[in-house]
This record gives sequence, structure tokens and C-alpha cells, in this order.
Amino acid sequence: MLSVGVIGTGMIGRDHIRRMTSVLAGVRVAAVTDVDFDVARSVAAFTGAAFRDSGESLITDASVEAVVVCSWGPTHEQYVLAAIAAGKPVFCEKPLAPSQEACLRIVEAEAAHGSRLVQVGYMRRYDPSYRALKAVLATGELGAPLMMHCAHRNASVPGFYGNEMAITDSAVHEIDMVRWMFGEEITAVQVLRPRRNSHGGELQDPLMLLFEMASGAIVDVETSVNIRYGYDIRGEIVGENGTASLGSLSPVRVRLGGKASDPVPADWQERFQTAYDVEFREWIDALRSSGRTSGPSAWDGYAAAVVSDAGVTALRTGERVPVVLAERPELYAPETPT
Amino acid sequence: MLSVGVIGTGMIGRDHIRRMTSVLAGVRVAAVTDVDFDVARSVAAFTGAAFRDSGESLITDASVEAVVVCSWGPTHEQYVLAAIAAGKPVFCEKPLAPSQEACLRIVEAEAAHGSRLVQVGYMRRYDPSYRALKAVLATGELGAPLMMHCAHRNASVPGFYGNEMAITDSAVHEIDMVRWMFGEEITAVQVLRPRRNSHGGELQDPLMLLFEMASGAIVDVETSVNIRYGYDIRGEIVGENGTASLGSLSPVRVRLGGKASDPVPADWQERFQTAYDVEFREWIDALRSSGRTSGPSAWDGYAAAVVSDAGVTALRTGERVPVVLAERPELYAPETPT
Amino acid sequence: MLSVGVIGTGMIGRDHIRRMTSVLAGVRVAAVTDVDFDVARSVAAFTGAAFRDSGESLITDASVEAVVVCSWGPTHEQYVLAAIAAGKPVFCEKPLAPSQEACLRIVEAEAAHGSRLVQVGYMRRYDPSYRALKAVLATGELGAPLMMHCAHRNASVPGFYGNEMAITDSAVHEIDMVRWMFGEEITAVQVLRPRRNSHGGELQDPLMLLFEMASGAIVDVETSVNIRYGYDIRGEIVGENGTASLGSLSPVRVRLGGKASDPVPADWQERFQTAYDVEFREWIDALRSSGRTSGPSAWDGYAAAVVSDAGVTALRTGERVPVVLAERPELYAPETPT
Amino acid sequence: MLSVGVIGTGMIGRDHIRRMTSVLAGVRVAAVTDVDFDVARSVAAFTGAAFRDSGESLITDASVEAVVVCSWGPTHEQYVLAAIAAGKPVFCEKPLAPSQEACLRIVEAEAAHGSRLVQVGYMRRYDPSYRALKAVLATGELGAPLMMHCAHRNASVPGFYGNEMAITDSAVHEIDMVRWMFGEEITAVQVLRPRRNSHGGELQDPLMLLFEMASGAIVDVETSVNIRYGYDIRGEIVGENGTASLGSLSPVRVRLGGKASDPVPADWQERFQTAYDVEFREWIDALRSSGRTSGPSAWDGYAAAVVSDAGVTALRTGERVPVVLAERPELYAPETPT
Repeated sequence: MLSVGVIGTGMIGRDHIRRMTSVLAGVRVAAVTDVDFDVARSVAAFTGAAFRDSGESLITDASVEAVVVCSWGPTHEQYVLAAIAAGKPVFCEKPLAPSQEACLRIVEAEAAHGSRLVQVGYMRRYDPSYRALKAVLATGELGAPLMMHCAHRNASVPGFYGNEMAITDSAVHEIDMVRWMFGEEITAVQVLRPRRNSHGGELQDPLMLLFEMASGAIVDVETSVNIRYGYDIRGEIVGENGTASLGSLSPVRVRLGGKASDPVPADWQERFQTAYDVEFREWIDALRSSGRTSGPSAWDGYAAAVVSDAGVTALRTGERVPVVLAERPELYAPETPT
Repeated sequence: MLSVGVIGTGMIGRDHIRRMTSVLAGVRVAAVTDVDFDVARSVAAFTGAAFRDSGESLITDASVEAVVVCSWGPTHEQYVLAAIAAGKPVFCEKPLAPSQEACLRIVEAEAAHGSRLVQVGYMRRYDPSYRALKAVLATGELGAPLMMHCAHRNASVPGFYGNEMAITDSAVHEIDMVRWMFGEEITAVQVLRPRRNSHGGELQDPLMLLFEMASGAIVDVETSVNIRYGYDIRGEIVGENGTASLGSLSPVRVRLGGKASDPVPADWQERFQTAYDVEFREWIDALRSSGRTSGPSAWDGYAAAVVSDAGVTALRTGERVPVVLAERPELYAPETPT
Repeated sequence: MLSVGVIGTGMIGRDHIRRMTSVLAGVRVAAVTDVDFDVARSVAAFTGAAFRDSGESLITDASVEAVVVCSWGPTHEQYVLAAIAAGKPVFCEKPLAPSQEACLRIVEAEAAHGSRLVQVGYMRRYDPSYRALKAVLATGELGAPLMMHCAHRNASVPGFYGNEMAITDSAVHEIDMVRWMFGEEITAVQVLRPRRNSHGGELQDPLMLLFEMASGAIVDVETSVNIRYGYDIRGEIVGENGTASLGSLSPVRVRLGGKASDPVPADWQERFQTAYDVEFREWIDALRSSGRTSGPSAWDGYAAAVVSDAGVTALRTGERVPVVLAERPELYAPETPT
Repeated sequence: MLSVGVIGTGMIGRDHIRRMTSVLAGVRVAAVTDVDFDVARSVAAFTGAAFRDSGESLITDASVEAVVVCSWGPTHEQYVLAAIAAGKPVFCEKPLAPSQEACLRIVEAEAAHGSRLVQVGYMRRYDPSYRALKAVLATGELGAPLMMHCAHRNASVPGFYGNEMAITDSAVHEIDMVRWMFGEEITAVQVLRPRRNSHGGELQDPLMLLFEMASGAIVDVETSVNIRYGYDIRGEIVGENGTASLGSLSPVRVRLGGKASDPVPADWQERFQTAYDVEFREWIDALRSSGRTSGPSAWDGYAAAVVSDAGVTALRTGERVPVVLAERPELYAPETPT
């Protein structure tokens, strides 16, 4: 039984607490905290966890074996660094930290510590469809991957959703996914601005992102965040001999009124629910069996931040922006794991 | 240029005349007739064909090299027999004749004539999807065919559509198709009566037909003639190693309002338009190149009538009804052609 | 935390133990037993459960709140009856008991007890695709269901698989599913014997089962147990206005060598893994929240046994066999639950 | 009966002659010519057409009502101009002429003539799938089109296929299609060079083309000309409310060996055979009924040439290249037709 402390009891924090108390075996929530003490106390009471009055005290609590960070982004760095200092595994929701400099400080701290403690919450690596895609790539039957076409579509976004969030919040999932899928770094970014969707008012939506990979492969990503019809995630890898795409996952096909139709997921919760469960299942199992985390690393979180920053610059300037990464510490193997 | 005489200028006759004058090369309509002289004269004037005042005079007209019979079913026998007597190729719309006895008289007349002149209008043998299915079967990769699941669905039927027409008018296409697909005769028929579709009032709809083939294979056919959503034809052959189904033929996939949908054809004209064109294309080409017809034969028309009759008896009695065919003349090869 | 005792530590028992110890939250395995004491002791040691030397002592063990029966079919009755006698909830793998008489004794015992304790392991009710199908039916947009076409295909079966097992072991899942899907009883069964698949030697495979429902709806089920290409489960409900089918669940689509292809599951473990997890998830949650079981009931297990027996008779005789059920105790609501 | 003269009896010319003699009604080939007199004479003899010893004499032949130009690209201009001078409708295979200057001279000549005589052989406008896509767009239910994702894939290309041909020979079809689909001009082009497919040796393949439309919409086109698995044409329009894609056109679905697969067309002849037939069907019908051509115009041929040139420059320089068109004569309506 892994004892976990959770920092941040907002929507995503409570969802992970639910997952660790009501869904997954082998884990318990030992302690919780939040900037809003009342919420944290009420969650603690409901789940039987202890309330702690700060992230730091939760991290050093002897009953806490591993930490989950779901607090506000700007606080991620301090908690992750504290967990590293305490030598405890820490699962940090994305982004790892709000700036690439902060991410790099975490990378350096972990590298200095000498073993991996940090996992970042990029759940697509745990989605059965993306895994099947990666498995096809691994057989070699497609030959080398040359391109990947992606789309990331949301039915709608809230009013505070700004232009850059299509990159920093939405496409950042594709940034991590494609680094993992191709097993290499993104080296440059370009962003095109198609005609605007009138549902978004002044929002620059959709966008067309173009990533250059170290191998020369090119990845294009459409982000459409107000497309009304549903939540739709696409991906097709173009290889030398053929292609592989995310498949069709329709539970039911209905024929009515002149149409044969399949339902489209409403939102990311519906689409990636299994991925979130598998992500935690494997994190828990890995910590219980070996004490080591093997999912998206601090380096992955850092690289995503650098690419994301390059994307924002590319959006603002209209230019192709090279991605410049710090030197990668030896701790982070050349092949991104999982 | 093949000169054709058309008997019957009703809806289907006019459609074939359109096909032979406005669509297909290598054929002309030389003469037309109809029980309604005014209609026939007007069609003649419009197409530049000669008007003839009887089927018999049209058939013996020296300018007519081949005959197309689209008149009322009860008149088919006399015209087909007259064409055989004249030694002219004749394309007869289904049914070949309204009773199995009449069909058998045609078979015997043609066998006495000694070469094939008659082709019956079972157009599914010319549909690209059914042909692709038969081509898969011919590779042998499925092993022996053991079952076939079919559905024949119409959005709605006119008021005069009676219980037996689901067999004699609709499923008769599956009867011919499966004999051709499997290359063997149907030996017995059973008909089940599911709960009635209220759109049809007292009509016994849907039906579930069960055909036993000479090899022991079993074919089930759902007929649903008031199913509202469109015209939908299905077929899946179950073999020893796998299956092959009629594929998906959607020109466009639309994602809107929570659904990804493909259009369903509205009716048989839309679904089988290409099959009708190919049917005539090949009939014309065969006559021009060899003078011989190779499509569904008089025997096929006779066998369809016998199975259809057995189906009607099975519907009335609820019993399994054996199919008893006359001895097959040598003219009709053991393998059904095309 | 629900404390469960498991009777039977064979393949399926060990899989459920794994599920309750390594996958699902909120449950622990408190005690285990098996006819093979050595296996049971080893499983007990591995999972930290207590070993008990009989099903009866396990059931009466104070630490056991609910019982899972995975032992050899002929022993199900005694353990289920003992659990009822002890007033403890019991999950019994299918079949509930090997004869309809034994099933009926369980029904009567539970009815005498006065509240539901028994759940039978028909996991398809928990499969997301079947649930989506039932949800479509529940909207009423299809109108009344008139037919259902099913196929149940296995790549291969072991040598001991006999003719009747296609009904008692395979199609019994469709028997339970369709009673639940349509919310009504099966009233008669007919079984057709298509041409035999040579992969099965003398085995009568495939079969075509025909179920008549109380409403008059007809359900056909193809069982093919040696079809080589994979494990494939199909279902299409034909309603008055349209149809609904089990959808396509392909994680990845590969285009290579002239083909665009989707993987087919290899076996039932792959196809129904999620259904098994959800089945136990909901059983555990229901017991923890209300102490009551709401899944497939003893009556469902009994009805499946009666229909299955009728199917075996129909296979042997070639006749249509009516299904005669005992009077249903009030405990079992007219609507079969979810 | 339309009497057509054909200039050029190479592969494509002979295919169109076959179409006009053996497939389509209402047309005859009256005269043919070719730079290779022997081939032209042999085709003339075979089809019963007259042989002419030059394109010019064929065009002015009184028996020729309309001209089809299938000769070597560099000769297109002279024949099209001669047809305009003779006031005869002319169907010219793509490209209209090998340079944008030559195309513009044709545009100016036709504009001076005052009515449309020229049609260019962009057959995708006649493909049922592209037409269905345009019909969806025309309903307005997608809202404004914002993006379109395209792929143009060939299994392999001959040895003489050079870098620029992926634009001038392959993607030129997408250039015409998207102008027609969106009803507006392309205003700028960018070309990206992904990692090279090793099957093509030094060939720069695949390419990623990016078109900006007058409305601001962006169209991306992948060209892959050595992808081995088959010929695959994709297109998805992204609108404000949803998307519409070219559908699935699989005649048969086969389940074998762990896979459910659909065939992929081998080449463009297989994929676009119907489009070629419809293209000529409508050209003939339009000329016979109104004497006017309504398909892709000389302006469309000119615009395709200018965009294609811009694409070649963009490929060479790596820069975004604006498309600069001459002023459009009034003859060419603002809405591209069909």
C-alpha cells in the first residue's frame, strides 16, 4: 500500500484523490493540503486523510511516501524541489513549472540528487490508442517516420482562454506525445494563423503548429478550440512504407434518418479517462515494486516548456523559432521511457 | 452499334432507354412498343426510335438485333418465347415470368433452341461490392463458405406492397445473388415472422428468411421494408478462416453535433445505379463481340422463381419447405456464370 | 474496504483475486480455499489472505463479508446456498449451477431469504459497448426492437470442446445479454446446423441459434468457434426506425501493402477485460454503499440455464423448443436490472 | 451525336478515345492526329476516325465539332489557341500550358473571343466524393471553412520523376480542387521538406505544402510519392462547427489473420476512373445541350500554373511565396463553376 500526500485539492486534485481512494488498489491518500484550508480539511475528513497546513509539512510528513502536486502552476517548482530535497517520489501535474527556467532548476536539482523522483502528468503516453500507434512504429514495418499529422479539437473553451493557451495548455500534450512517440527532440517551431472561427470572437483560433524533429521529420498540429461538434484527437504517422493512425473508438453505431453515425467524445475527461487511470496505476506499481518512476521525466517537462515557449514566440512573430535546450544530464536516457 | 427493341415503356423501360441513348456507347434503341400506344409513340418520337404496335412485330422487325422486355410481368413469357423463336437475344427484367411453370417453359424453349439467348435482369451480379466479395471468395483464403448473413432494408414501401412481396420482389435479389455467389442451388427455405414494425400496419414486416444451400451452408436474410432510415443492403460471408462483408461506400464523413456520420443511400436507384449501367454495358459488349449473353440465365430466372415460391409457402405455413428443381438442361453450365 | 472470501483458486479465481488485490480499490481478499489445498495455501500466502479448508468454513468466517464462487461448476449450488444461509452476498461465476433444477433451488432459497444476495458473472452487461447499445434503445429513437443479429466467434477452441458447449459455454452470454438488452424473456429456441468448419473435425461448428422473445422479436446468433481470424463479438438491434450496432473499437488503423487494417482482438480476455473490471467495481461499490447486489440475479442465472437446456434439445432434435420457466418470485423485478 | 477530334494518341489520348467510342453515348471520334503518324493512323483505322496530318488541319476539319488536346504539354498552347481561333470548344488535358505566360495568352485569347470554349482536364471536380464534400460545405452547416488537410500519396513514381513534379504534376490537382472547393484564390504558398523517404533516393519526398487562401483559410497538402502501400487521396475541411472528410470507399471488408482490412486503390486510374467518365459525360452533354463548356476554365488552368510556379519557388527558396495573378477578365465569373 503506497501512502500518498496530495498538494492541491482543486478539481484535478480531487479527481486524483478519488482515483486513489475509490478506483485503484494499492494506494492510500495519507495527507492533503491546499491553499484553501477549509477545502483541504473537508477533503481530508471525507477521505480519512490527515490535513497538513503546508505543502512543505506534507512532504516531510513521515507517513507520506510519495507526493502528488496538483496546486496552482506557479507553486509547482517549490513543492517539487522540496520533494527532491526530501528524496521522495513526486508526481506533478503539467506543467512541471510555468517557465522553462524553473523547469531547468528542477532538472538540475534532480540530476544533482542522482536518481529519478519526478514524473510529470502527461497522460497521453498511457492512452491505449497512442500506445498501439507506438507499438506499430516499433515493429519497423512502416520504415522511418517522416511526418505526423495531428489535430486537437475542443468543442469550446472558457472565456479566460487566451491565444497562447492553445499552445501552452492544449498542444503541449502533442509536444510531449510526439517527443515520446518519435523518441527525439523537437528542434524548431512555426505557427500559422488560419482564418478565425467566429465562435471565438477575437481569439486566434484555429492554429496550425509545425514542429521540426531532430531527424528532420515534420509534425503538424491543428488546434481548434471552439469547434462545437465535440472533443476529437487525431494522429497519423506517415512512414516510408505506410501510415498508422489513432483508430476509431466508437462503442455504438446508430443508423437513423439517412445517416449511420458514431458518437464523438464530449470532452477530454471522457476521451482520456482510461489514460489517467493507467497513468496512476503504473506510477503506483512502479513505486511499489522498484521505488522508481519511469513516466514522463523532469527533462520531458523542461523540454515541453522550452518548445511551448518557442511556439508562443512563433505565434507572436510569425517566424520559425529554433528550440534551444540546455545540455541533457546523463540521468535522462537518450530514449524517452515507457 | 447494337440495335435494340424495347417492349414496355413504363418507368423501368424508360430508364433503360435513357441508359441506351444517353449513357452507354455502342447501342441504339431502334424500336419501342407498349400496351399504351400513346406513351410508346411519345417515347419513340423523343428518342428517334420506330414505334411498333406489338411486342411480336417489334421482335421480328429486321432492324431489331436484340430485345429488352420491361413490360408487365404476366406478358414476359410470350415475348421471351417469341424472341427465342426469332433467334434473337433478349434481356428480360426480373421476374423472368410470374410462375415457375412459365419460367420452365422458357428454359425448355431455350434448351431446345440450343444456345443461350435469354438474360434476366438480376443486376446485383454487376455491383462492384458484390463482385469484390465474390473475388475474395475465389481466392480461397476464407476457406469454404459456411454461412452468409444478409439484410435487405427499404425506407418504406407503397401501399399495395403485400406480405409476399418481401420475398418475391425484395429477397428474390438475394436468392439470385447467393446462388451466384456460392455457385450452387438453394435446397430449402424457412421463413420466420418477427414482431411487426408498426410503420407497416398489418404488413408482416420484417421477415427472417433462412436458405439451405446444396453444400449445407446456411444463408439468413432479414427483409425490413419500412425501416425509415434509408436503403441498406448488407452481406457477410462466413468462411472457415474468416469473413468478407460488403464494404462501406460513404463518399463523405461529416462531424457535427456530437456525431461523426456517413450518409445512407435513399433507395435502390441510388445504391445500384452503377450496377445497372455495368449490367447493360456488359450485355451490349457481349452481344457485340460474341453474340452471346453471359449474365443471369433463364435457368437462374427459373430457379429464383422456384425458391421464391418455396419462400411464399414457407411464409404461409411456417414450415421448412424443400426446393424442388426440374432437371437442369446441359445448356446451363454447373457454374453459374459471370 | 470490503472483505471478500474466494472459493476456487483456478485460473478465473486467481484472476479475480488479482483484480481485487492489484487493480480495484475498496476491497481485500480476506480468505481463500480450493479443492487443491496446496494451490489455495500458496495463493493465500502470496496475497496475505487466510487459508480455509472448505468453502463452508470460508463462508461462515467472520472476517468474510462477501463470497466469490469460482470453483468447479457442480459445486456452485452448495456454496451459493451456504452463502444465502449465512446471509452473505455471493458473486458466482457462470453458470449459476449446472442444471436448471439446481438453479431453481437457489432462486427459491434466495426468495425465501427475502432479499437479493446472489449475483451471477455475466460480464457483458458491464461492457461499455453493450451499455451504449442499451442506452440507444432506451432513448426510444429506434422504436420497438424487432430483431437482433449476433455473432460470437472464437479463433479456436480446445480439444475437449463438445458440440453443446457452443450453446452452454459460448452463446449463453448472448442468452443473458439479450434478456437484459430487451428486458424480456426468451420463449423458444431453434438451432440450425450449417456446413461444418473443417478446422473443427467432427465438431458441429458453426451453429445458428434463433431465439424468440416474449414480444415476438427474433434474435439470431451465429456461433463460430474455430474461425481462426480472432475473437469477434457482433450485435445489431433492428428497430422500427433504424438500427444500432456494437461499434468499432480499433485503437489503431494501419495502412500497409495495399490494405488499411484494424486489429481484431485475440480472445475474450482482451475483448472483455474492461467489462470484468467494471463488473467487480460495481459489485463492490454496491455492497459497500447499500449492501445490495444489483447485477445479474439468481433468476437470470436460472433463466439462462433453462434457455440453454432448450437450445441443447433444439440442437439434438432439430426442432423448435419452447422455453418453460417456473413462476418468477416477486423478489425479481419485471425489469432485469443493469 | 458530338463529333470530336483528338490531338495526341498517346496513353491518355487513347484512353479518352476508348471512353468516347466504347463507354459514353452521344459522342463519336471523327478525326485523330499525333506527332507519330503511324500510331495516329492505326488508332484512326481501329476506331473508324479520319486521320489528319496536323493538329491545325484537324481543328479546322468541318466534321470536327469539338477538340480534345492530349498531346505533349509544350504543344498545348498552339492547339488551344487554334481551337479558339476556329471558335470550337476544346478540352485540354492538364496542364493547360507549361508556363503561366502561355496560359495567360490563352486566357486573353478566349476573353477576346468573348465566350468560353476551353475546359482543362482537372477531373477531381467530377469525383463523387469531392462533390459530396462540396455539397456539405454548400449547406452551410459547417460554418465558414477555416482549414483543409489534404494528402496525396502514390505507391511509387518512375525514375524521371523530379523534385518539382510533386508540385507541378501531383499537388496541382489539390491546387485546382481547393480553389474550386473554397470558391476563392490561393494567395501564398510555403513548402516544407520533411525527412526523406529512402525509397526515393535523392528525391525530396515527402513534401508539405501550405496554401493561404484569400479568405485567410489555410490548406496543407502532404505529397508522398513513394509510400508503397497504395494510392491514397485524403481531404478534410475544418469548419467553424465541424468537419467533413472524403469518405471511405471500400467495396469489401475482409477479416483474416487478426485483421479486419479494406483494400486501398493501387493507382489513380482505379481511384478516379469514375471521375474521368463523369468529366467527359458532362462535357459532352453540356456541348450538346448548350454548346457551352462549364468545367475548369482557362482561368483555372492559368491560376493553377501561377500557384504551381509559386510552389516551385517556395520549394527552392524555403520562403513563403505570394501568388500574383493577372487581372481576371469578366468572362470568368467570381465563383468558379460546377
